[in-house]
Amino acid sequence: MSSVPDDVLQILRRHGNSPAPSALDALMRGVAAAPEGLAGPEWAELISPDPDTELTNALVAWRAELANSADGLDMAPAPPERLAALRAELRRRGIDGFVVPRADEHQGEYVPRGSQRLAWLTGFGGSAGLAIVLADRAAIFIDGRYTLAARSQVDTAAFVPHQIPEQSPEAWIAANLPKDGRLGFDPWLQTVDGQERFARACQRAGGSFVAIESNPIDSIWHDRPPPPLAPMLPHPVELAGEASEAKRKRIAAIVSDKGADVALITAPDSIAWLLNVRGGDVPRTPFALGFALLHSDGHVDLYMDRRKVPGRTIGWLGNAVTLAPPDELGAALETLGRMGKRVLIETSTAPHWASTRLQAANATIVRDADPVALPKACKNAVELDGIRAAHHRDGVAVSRFLGWLAARSTSGNLREIEASDRLQAMRQETGALRDLSFDTISGAGPNGAIVHYRASAATERVLQPGSLYLVDSGGQYRDGTTDITRTIAIGTPTPEMRDRFTRVLKGHIALATARFPAGTTGSQLDALARYHLWQAGVDYDHGTGHGVGAYLSVHEGPHRISKMASTVALLPGMIVSNEPGYYKTGAYGIRIENLVAVREAEIDGADRRYHEFETLTLAPIDLACIEVSLLSDAERKWLNDYHCRVREAVGPDVDDATRQWLVDATRAL
Amino acid sequence: MSSVPDDVLQILRRHGNSPAPSALDALMRGVAAAPEGLAGPEWAELISPDPDTELTNALVAWRAELANSADGLDMAPAPPERLAALRAELRRRGIDGFVVPRADEHQGEYVPRGSQRLAWLTGFGGSAGLAIVLADRAAIFIDGRYTLAARSQVDTAAFVPHQIPEQSPEAWIAANLPKDGRLGFDPWLQTVDGQERFARACQRAGGSFVAIESNPIDSIWHDRPPPPLAPMLPHPVELAGEASEAKRKRIAAIVSDKGADVALITAPDSIAWLLNVRGGDVPRTPFALGFALLHSDGHVDLYMDRRKVPGRTIGWLGNAVTLAPPDELGAALETLGRMGKRVLIETSTAPHWASTRLQAANATIVRDADPVALPKACKNAVELDGIRAAHHRDGVAVSRFLGWLAARSTSGNLREIEASDRLQAMRQETGALRDLSFDTISGAGPNGAIVHYRASAATERVLQPGSLYLVDSGGQYRDGTTDITRTIAIGTPTPEMRDRFTRVLKGHIALATARFPAGTTGSQLDALARYHLWQAGVDYDHGTGHGVGAYLSVHEGPHRISKMASTVALLPGMIVSNEPGYYKTGAYGIRIENLVAVREAEIDGADRRYHEFETLTLAPIDLACIEVSLLSDAERKWLNDYHCRVREAVGPDVDDATRQWLVDATRAL
Repeated sequence: MSSVPDDVLQILRRHGNSPAPSALDALMRGVAAAPEGLAGPEWAELISPDPDTELTNALVAWRAELANSADGLDMAPAPPERLAALRAELRRRGIDGFVVPRADEHQGEYVPRGSQRLAWLTGFGGSAGLAIVLADRAAIFIDGRYTLAARSQVDTAAFVPHQIPEQSPEAWIAANLPKDGRLGFDPWLQTVDGQERFARACQRAGGSFVAIESNPIDSIWHDRPPPPLAPMLPHPVELAGEASEAKRKRIAAIVSDKGADVALITAPDSIAWLLNVRGGDVPRTPFALGFALLHSDGHVDLYMDRRKVPGRTIGWLGNAVTLAPPDELGAALETLGRMGKRVLIETSTAPHWASTRLQAANATIVRDADPVALPKACKNAVELDGIRAAHHRDGVAVSRFLGWLAARSTSGNLREIEASDRLQAMRQETGALRDLSFDTISGAGPNGAIVHYRASAATERVLQPGSLYLVDSGGQYRDGTTDITRTIAIGTPTPEMRDRFTRVLKGHIALATARFPAGTTGSQLDALARYHLWQAGVDYDHGTGHGVGAYLSVHEGPHRISKMASTVALLPGMIVSNEPGYYKTGAYGIRIENLVAVREAEIDGADRRYHEFETLTLAPIDLACIEVSLLSDAERKWLNDYHCRVREAVGPDVDDATRQWLVDATRAL
Repeated sequence: MSSVPDDVLQILRRHGNSPAPSALDALMRGVAAAPEGLAGPEWAELISPDPDTELTNALVAWRAELANSADGLDMAPAPPERLAALRAELRRRGIDGFVVPRADEHQGEYVPRGSQRLAWLTGFGGSAGLAIVLADRAAIFIDGRYTLAARSQVDTAAFVPHQIPEQSPEAWIAANLPKDGRLGFDPWLQTVDGQERFARACQRAGGSFVAIESNPIDSIWHDRPPPPLAPMLPHPVELAGEASEAKRKRIAAIVSDKGADVALITAPDSIAWLLNVRGGDVPRTPFALGFALLHSDGHVDLYMDRRKVPGRTIGWLGNAVTLAPPDELGAALETLGRMGKRVLIETSTAPHWASTRLQAANATIVRDADPVALPKACKNAVELDGIRAAHHRDGVAVSRFLGWLAARSTSGNLREIEASDRLQAMRQETGALRDLSFDTISGAGPNGAIVHYRASAATERVLQPGSLYLVDSGGQYRDGTTDITRTIAIGTPTPEMRDRFTRVLKGHIALATARFPAGTTGSQLDALARYHLWQAGVDYDHGTGHGVGAYLSVHEGPHRISKMASTVALLPGMIVSNEPGYYKTGAYGIRIENLVAVREAEIDGADRRYHEFETLTLAPIDLACIEVSLLSDAERKWLNDYHCRVREAVGPDVDDATRQWLVDATRAL
């Protein structure tokens, strides 16, 4: 059933373009399944090259209509008929249970709407979770961040909530799967490692873990959106700093060194970096979903829907990149196996589907990390220049917002959503914003203590005197991705707030000023950020730093700064956040986040190579929150120097009122 | 050929004891193969229960004679005939090469003389290393600590030195083993994990890695000493704090929880702790070499030479411990396999020999950590009381030494060995010293910069004015094991020395005062000890802290404080050293080492459980080395409080002269 509006068909015909209505309809449904973003209707190029305003307007109207049509999501809790229908479908297929992860085929942070099967089945909207449905019981597994959310979004009588990691799905399977029970899973959604863990759990129960190639939820979710189709466009070498051909040859050599003939790349950001392209299939992250095989000669087979690849991108990819339909990946893996090839896969993220195809065809699997991840994480000089420019631009926007906030918040009626809208507007006024890099966390008072808070009409609070306001936000610019958190005193903070803020700041400064030998990992440095909080018997339950892409994911690996043991060294060019915090449930939250880049440290007489951090983020840290007597001389000097740098960098590019505010906000202590 | 002296036989006969001379001779050769230690001839009990002075004296004389007879060791470089003989033996057996590790069957830090095959073959006397001998070439692999030593001890034309980890044995094998070459190894000396790594390396060369059950070196080392026979004696519950039966049941439950029916224990310190016994088969460490099978009902089969187990120990072990000859272990493993048992082994330390026996008999191998290691590391209240008493006693001895040193070193002619002899004498004067816990490191000036320095007549230096003297030492007492390093200014230190010393001290204090959430690992804390050195572009190339046993190994796991990624949390009761340092090659070395115990931290309003360290070691830190202006108020307070504690604890138990010195040495800054 085609829904193509007549005006669209007429305009297209006037341009000499007569697509089959059904194909056009399918294409537009894919377009509507991609997020709208802030960059305007660039997707119109997928319908017609060089569309004029009339056509674009008609398409925008049509897309809005499609995007607003019901797809079964955004209902929390989900209607109970869905669970009943799934159980009926499982019975029909002779399976005793089914695993429904939140993940899609790429195991990324954002999944397209048509892959949000967990949300459709349960209503749970968090970014990590898993349901297991058996004939007579079902459970949902979420982590501590989402305990409260799950209780409001999920029918907990139908799906009994369990908190990971204390209560593991594996333990639940071992205890609940009937003997000889067959627990089904979608081999596209289960990783190789995950499948092994769950299969062992099924064995412990005397049952088995059975791959079901056609997901039973897809059989019962009738208004499920199609895969998203956002245009994949060139990312110019002026921003990337290295031609795709050079990258492909470089990574191909790594693949060969690992003893493999070819690598299967399943992470869309790895593909985007490798091929110097950007897309828009999922929110907040400019990549196109797809799979790639990188051969040891540097040739890439890209498995991706051709409809989202405009002609100019085909040209940009060149002859060494072959575009193929996604459903040909299976045959390609089988061919590799028949040829006796050694295929590198990252078993913690690659779908079990791929490893079974390869093994069935007698390929040798080389288990190793995604070979793109580490080179991608080490930004080159051109990328770093772009990232510095993006942070300067973003710092101007954030400083304008903070100056506005200082004035506006005195009214006592400013609300969280107005504040975050204003911040977004400031970023859009730079004229360079492509998208936010994640949904802004705008938390007043107690809401600031909810680490993954997202304001809604139902939850938002007024920024009240005597409270703290926490705002964590970032922008996607073509030259870089930003991520900044500031905590602002509304009125006068309490001594406890200032004590905690200052301890967070001391940790932030300890990291910002740290020098460390080449080879040091983020897990070695993590305690530096927590030490002063620990001494007071408090801590924060999140990592201290995550990697950040160059106009890519705001969360990327393989490095990070966290309590988790890691063997990945911090290497020059890596971007990482420096974001210690403190959260007092029901009262307030504190986080101070700058992005930093790892660089070589120049130290006279050093006994080996040392690295240090270059702070990239440029915006004032609220002096009203600081208990100066807790700072050492060296810490005070860092803060004063940083604020001097912010003032000199941002001052010339802001309006007079902001500049006046900025002078005071960055005064020396 | 028996060497039994007539007087010994006569005295024994007078006591109504008429052993077969050949058996007596073999027994005494085993006794002589054990280290002499400092605890006197307790081994005489193995010859005759309750020996009188006359018999003891005769036995001591005989033992001395045997211990002084040549055994082929202590020749560096080793005579070249040995390598030639080994190659001839390999040809005779049809093997193309052989791996000669430094390790014995237990992979411990000390190996008995008869297992020092690497030293015998090459002359290399370090505590870690490996030689690989092929028909036309041979290599020796040592780490950076021993690069210089290897060049003086080894014929480097015969054994080409390679530094690990940069140059790995695996890479050398892959590059040098001829195609179809058979590289032999002793399956008792190669761990399960090590065998897998080396086998892969042989495969890369197109060759194979072949287990040779009878070590070819043993065929050509004719005066090789027999296994040591030191008496294994009860370790009373008043010191152990927990009966062996309770320990055995507790660990057996852990073994069951891991899904195993029985655990093979190959670490002698694990066996000593589990059975509440102590021995003396290797230097500096009071345990008996042997193997144990711990069954899930708490029963232990102990595979150990009966001759070193006196009757009273047999009674002490009780009915649930079965003593069996070591050569019956193989049959026992095969029986377990035939019964379909699941056997837990730690594959990083268990001999490949054991896993092949088990696998050949169809046992299921459960790969897991030695189940004793973690419980052993967490000292109980009784052990901690004993350890505190040992540190008090040791602190008195060390303080007396340091007071003596302050006076004696002004002469300008004090030498390293006189100093360490004096320190040993002070410990012996406590009347409780069983042995040193390791060979004292007594390093003056540039020798202090050699991390594993051991003074000899050829290397020792005078403690000269304007230099630093580093002394790292410890004692084995029945109630505890100590380990302390102090760095002393001889005359006036330079500003650079004081800067470096103070940075080391700041790191020491940061650890000593750290509070950290339950679950924190040593690798998370390591950077706290290095931060102030790193800021100056310097570091130290050793771990910050090692576990320490309770009258057991001075180095024990599974915890440590180091750069190496670890997932082992620091748990209450664990003893660990706090020993940051700084070494300037050719100039001086600095290390400040105290032992600390992990304990619960009591913090008002803490958001979770926190731990902290209790400093155990009690001896002054040299104030002359400190640049006070580099210390924060909190650091100065820690030092003053510590010195006050030392003065109050040690002062009452030292002579007047020492007490007078102590008052000044512990004055508040």
